[in-house]
Amino acid sequence: MMKPICRFIDFETGKIGSNAKITKRYLSDLEGVFRDIDALRSMFNRDILVYEVHEIVVPERAGEITHGTSIIYPGKVGDEYFMTKGHFHVRAGGEVYLCLKGEGYILMEEKGGRSSYSKMIPGSLVYVPPLWAHRTINMGTKEFTCFYAFPSEVGHDYESIEKKGFSKLFLERDGKPVIENAHRDHQDSFLG
Amino acid sequence: MMKPICRFIDFETGKIGSNAKITKRYLSDLEGVFRDIDALRSMFNRDILVYEVHEIVVPERAGEITHGTSIIYPGKVGDEYFMTKGHFHVRAGGEVYLCLKGEGYILMEEKGGRSSYSKMIPGSLVYVPPLWAHRTINMGTKEFTCFYAFPSEVGHDYESIEKKGFSKLFLERDGKPVIENAHRDHQDSFLG
Repeated sequence: MMKPICRFIDFETGKIGSNAKITKRYLSDLEGVFRDIDALRSMFNRDILVYEVHEIVVPERAGEITHGTSIIYPGKVGDEYFMTKGHFHVRAGGEVYLCLKGEGYILMEEKGGRSSYSKMIPGSLVYVPPLWAHRTINMGTKEFTCFYAFPSEVGHDYESIEKKGFSKLFLERDGKPVIENAHRDHQDSFLG
Repeated sequence: MMKPICRFIDFETGKIGSNAKITKRYLSDLEGVFRDIDALRSMFNRDILVYEVHEIVVPERAGEITHGTSIIYPGKVGDEYFMTKGHFHVRAGGEVYLCLKGEGYILMEEKGGRSSYSKMIPGSLVYVPPLWAHRTINMGTKEFTCFYAFPSEVGHDYESIEKKGFSKLFLERDGKPVIENAHRDHQDSFLG
């Protein structure tokens, strides 16, 4: 029988003290994610950490909840803000995001094409319904940290996003953050 | 098809702005929870709010995550600190607790009798495995607020706890918090 797991999130750094599974995504892991390939490659000489994920590992079976933190560092590739790769779940499963630090957006998209996005600041709480892809984007000047939780058995599908991308771009124009269409057919809604 | 849900947790009050389902538990709802029945009844003339739960309502089916906040106010019934009723899940399902404010404990117990407890301060992250009952206790001087998430389809079993109680008491003795056995057979472990 499994025992309780007791850990600690440092709200300042977003890191989970001990025994978390840590995944680090550097610029060189993110070819195909950012649109400006030349800008991306020109930054490879100092391979920058774009985001990291600290995860509490639980059994991958029905009834269990995988949870952890994602920490996106501030930065841009060309005019595009640092962000996560984004994923669908393989099986239908919702996901909760709670912003703990910083300022950014969550972008969500159905396989059919409908998209939604919402600004997140500390306290923002977003429920990504089953079958919606999701990505988070740091549009601030410090770390953008979210706590997340999802059903452990649903798995990750990164490939669909790698092939098709999302329908929105999060860019800096004249020193200001803007959200633009990525020139694909879609419906979308702005959730605040 | 369900749409994303975007809400906001006020980290100071623990409350979720709009459209949350709010459950309030007053002293008069908690007969049988606290051991000092006379102290409990003597407090009924000013029926005090012990805790409240703000919950995001999602469909009760596999793959969905119910989530929200529990806010326990500071106080005691006799020498026993304010706490939640506590519950098992009807079907096997884990639950995540993340402390956002205050100071307290989480007490967890298997049906067989093994118990665990852990101190929680802001940042403390506890995973209650499937089939463990759980209760949270405010041992501080302000609100003790936790964010929680669990699989929506697992249901709540309050009755087993109402009948048998938990194996630990969280009391104030000579102005100091202490944890005592409730004189039942059990194994237990202290998780820090």
